Amino acid sequence: MARRAGVSVTTVSRFLAGQPVRAADTIRTAVADLAYRPSPVARSLRSGRTRSIAVVVPDVTNPFFAAVVKGAEAVARQDEYHLFLSNTDENVDREAAVLADLVGRVDGVILAPTVESDEAPLRAHRAGLPIVFLDREIGGSAMFDAVLVDNVGGSRRAAEHLLDLGHRRIAIVNGTMRSTPGRQRRETFIETLTSRGVEPAEILEEVGDFREQGGYQAVLRLLALEHPPTAIFVTNNLMTVGALRALHDIGARVPDQVSIVGFDDLDLAALLMPPLTVVERPMEEQGSLAMRLLLNRLRDRGDATPRRIVLETRLLVRGSTARPATATRKPLS
Amino acid sequence: MARRAGVSVTTVSRFLAGQPVRAADTIRTAVADLAYRPSPVARSLRSGRTRSIAVVVPDVTNPFFAAVVKGAEAVARQDEYHLFLSNTDENVDREAAVLADLVGRVDGVILAPTVESDEAPLRAHRAGLPIVFLDREIGGSAMFDAVLVDNVGGSRRAAEHLLDLGHRRIAIVNGTMRSTPGRQRRETFIETLTSRGVEPAEILEEVGDFREQGGYQAVLRLLALEHPPTAIFVTNNLMTVGALRALHDIGARVPDQVSIVGFDDLDLAALLMPPLTVVERPMEEQGSLAMRLLLNRLRDRGDATPRRIVLETRLLVRGSTARPATATRKPLS
Repeated sequence: MARRAGVSVTTVSRFLAGQPVRAADTIRTAVADLAYRPSPVARSLRSGRTRSIAVVVPDVTNPFFAAVVKGAEAVARQDEYHLFLSNTDENVDREAAVLADLVGRVDGVILAPTVESDEAPLRAHRAGLPIVFLDREIGGSAMFDAVLVDNVGGSRRAAEHLLDLGHRRIAIVNGTMRSTPGRQRRETFIETLTSRGVEPAEILEEVGDFREQGGYQAVLRLLALEHPPTAIFVTNNLMTVGALRALHDIGARVPDQVSIVGFDDLDLAALLMPPLTVVERPMEEQGSLAMRLLLNRLRDRGDATPRRIVLETRLLVRGSTARPATATRKPLS
Repeated sequence: MARRAGVSVTTVSRFLAGQPVRAADTIRTAVADLAYRPSPVARSLRSGRTRSIAVVVPDVTNPFFAAVVKGAEAVARQDEYHLFLSNTDENVDREAAVLADLVGRVDGVILAPTVESDEAPLRAHRAGLPIVFLDREIGGSAMFDAVLVDNVGGSRRAAEHLLDLGHRRIAIVNGTMRSTPGRQRRETFIETLTSRGVEPAEILEEVGDFREQGGYQAVLRLLALEHPPTAIFVTNNLMTVGALRALHDIGARVPDQVSIVGFDDLDLAALLMPPLTVVERPMEEQGSLAMRLLLNRLRDRGDATPRRIVLETRLLVRGSTARPATATRKPLS
């Protein structure tokens, strides 16, 4: 390259770094001619910028996170950032390894951390990696930007809806309780039930780990009980798919035999028979907002006050919830 | 770091590169002490290896590609490779930019190219980026490893199934015909129909661009025709979701009024009313095989003969296909 332009390697390097050099036109021609691309690694080392952002999520096959990535990418593209995706598989060690590896490799990270007790994000932050939290937080994350969702309002509305229909023996299929949405959805749902006079013994809990197979097994266990619940709240989309499969496989009638409320809408939820009642929230918007916060943070060089955005949820009542077949006549306390 | 260990910077660099140095124990202690991580960018520049693989797909919200990523990642993890995902949004310019940017940044790429006439993968290959093709190919890709799917067999079986039921006025909702699956699924389906005596005028075509909204609009147009088709073959999963939504919105009865066959199974396909007939193929396996080919290629340093794997498809006949309400009595030619 330098030989082709008849100048020194140092001169070419200075030209490529945007500094004034003699014979700039000659070098420019040679550059175009050879379609020479300076090594991205070498360029990153020089500029300290990679123009890449990583999105680190617990499960890439979860349609919610796919929508988040789509929203984040649309914003990144406008600013000519590349977006990479990493999957932690809900594994805290894996997340730590991914974050450590991203330091210096990307300009910033949008992270849905595995557990709230996570310390890896703090270490990555101290090592200079800007982080925006998405959908989940960690203890001490008040110093970070975050885009969250109103799990409390959504879960309360799900509980009230089932109570208003007359259900008193109600189950919740939990995700990972060490994560923000897992903890918040569980706590709020159970608090709402007990505050409205449901006996703790009538509240059934199963853990499904936010996975389809977990939801499937949880519902099989619940419906095999001597006194099965008349309604089930399933706290994420993948577990809801598993729950619906389980109900289908054992021939349970929804909502006659058991009512179902899911958290997060599903692509085909309205087309199911019966159509599924769900707590819905913005998905792509969650990703695009997180990316906006991160890009602002990169421009501000970390000086601005942390911003917290909490998106609203909505209960979509469709056909999978109804009065229990044998509605309890017991007056509410 | 060097100061802390009381040795020269050069010595520390040599230690970190794994070369024998004096005072290695002192340096090791200092390294552990400071939790010093050499810059990944600097390390990559030195070793020429990043231990990262990129998966470049046209649409990250397509559950097929999510499954591919899951399969690829499971294999990458065993070999301690990081996996990154990039989305081209079916845009050939965007794909070219992504590939150019990945040269030198990752050790290899698993690519589902946007169009068969694509030249960007050849440029990236010449620039030294190992590439394995997934699900789609480009012209002249015989020199590359590839994991493909038997689109021909799958589409032929879909056509034969509809013909055997007695359908003669049949529509196909195409994806991007410039891509391998778009072209192969269309060509085979139409050839099978005409070879069995269906009049070309009875074969209706709509383009849905492999997107949900495209499938939705295509089906609305088809059912608004004066003589609508009695059966529709929808050539990917997202368009099938759109098609089902359109049929639901206009109150079309499936399969009484129109039979539906999709390509690629859907998470809830068996739970729909009626359950959906689809052409099914391995999904996670496609990703894991592509990753195995790529990791083998990296170990072989490019010397081995290119490997081509074509995975089989299967027709799952469920409830969305039946004899047409007014089966044509016309004898087949």
